[in-house]
Amino acid sequence: MEAHHIELIRKTIKLAQHNMRQGHGGPFAAIIAKDGIELASGCNSVTTTNDPTAHAEIMAIRNAGQKLGTWKLDGYELYTSCEPCPMCLSAAYWAGINKIWFSANSEDACLAGFNDSHIYQEIAKPTEQRKIDMSALLPAEGKALLAEWVTLPDKVMY
Amino acid sequence: MEAHHIELIRKTIKLAQHNMRQGHGGPFAAIIAKDGIELASGCNSVTTTNDPTAHAEIMAIRNAGQKLGTWKLDGYELYTSCEPCPMCLSAAYWAGINKIWFSANSEDACLAGFNDSHIYQEIAKPTEQRKIDMSALLPAEGKALLAEWVTLPDKVMY
Repeated sequence: MEAHHIELIRKTIKLAQHNMRQGHGGPFAAIIAKDGIELASGCNSVTTTNDPTAHAEIMAIRNAGQKLGTWKLDGYELYTSCEPCPMCLSAAYWAGINKIWFSANSEDACLAGFNDSHIYQEIAKPTEQRKIDMSALLPAEGKALLAEWVTLPDKVMY
Repeated sequence: MEAHHIELIRKTIKLAQHNMRQGHGGPFAAIIAKDGIELASGCNSVTTTNDPTAHAEIMAIRNAGQKLGTWKLDGYELYTSCEPCPMCLSAAYWAGINKIWFSANSEDACLAGFNDSHIYQEIAKPTEQRKIDMSALLPAEGKALLAEWVTLPDKVMY
């Protein structure tokens, strides 16, 4: 185990502790880094910014995108004070993160009142079995829109 | 089927079409509404804002939180031009969305180059079997931090 991994995960815990004690949000922080060099960090600010998506990992990924000037974080590693929820884990996949280091796990989070296991279970279910009811409307129109996208000459894929 | 559902889903398709044709991002838009009254909307801007989390549903949820002045969207419905990816679906659960209406489906999106099925598959796997390698570091320190959170008198839960 290289020392910089320990240093970075310890820093996420310090950041999360500060965030919590200052009342800026939940006890969560994350860092995006490569080869032990920190690129960007983020802290949970759900309750202070009225943004249910403002989890630490999402904020760190967004900040990293701003710093790099790209939406691609391929080759970067995500350090987080707690095992990611499915939203943040999915964001890591979209961003191209190739390694996640975490301190507390989902069970610890659940004991502190942050339960994401039901969301993991819901995501894995077929659409029609989820607690959030999901219905298709005007399916042909949305499909036609996506078909138009395919024909656009100057589109930027991600 | 009440007419306002059709109107709102058609509006997401129009917004998505405009977003795509103007080069603002991918062909995706979403609206947060209750009882047919639109609260907020959002469009995909991943490639123009360098934010891999800037999917339409995430943007709509963030905008809704700003407008309402809270991170709780309980009782609100999400209209989206395309079936949500696991990041956006998880965000809907965190926000308390109780109904999702979508036009195009995940298969349509995949045919247009937006494949999220592998992320759905990854999310459902045990931690140690995922393509993004995940490792625990200093687990006791993160656990202690969450235990401190439980003892804080003035914490705001979400």
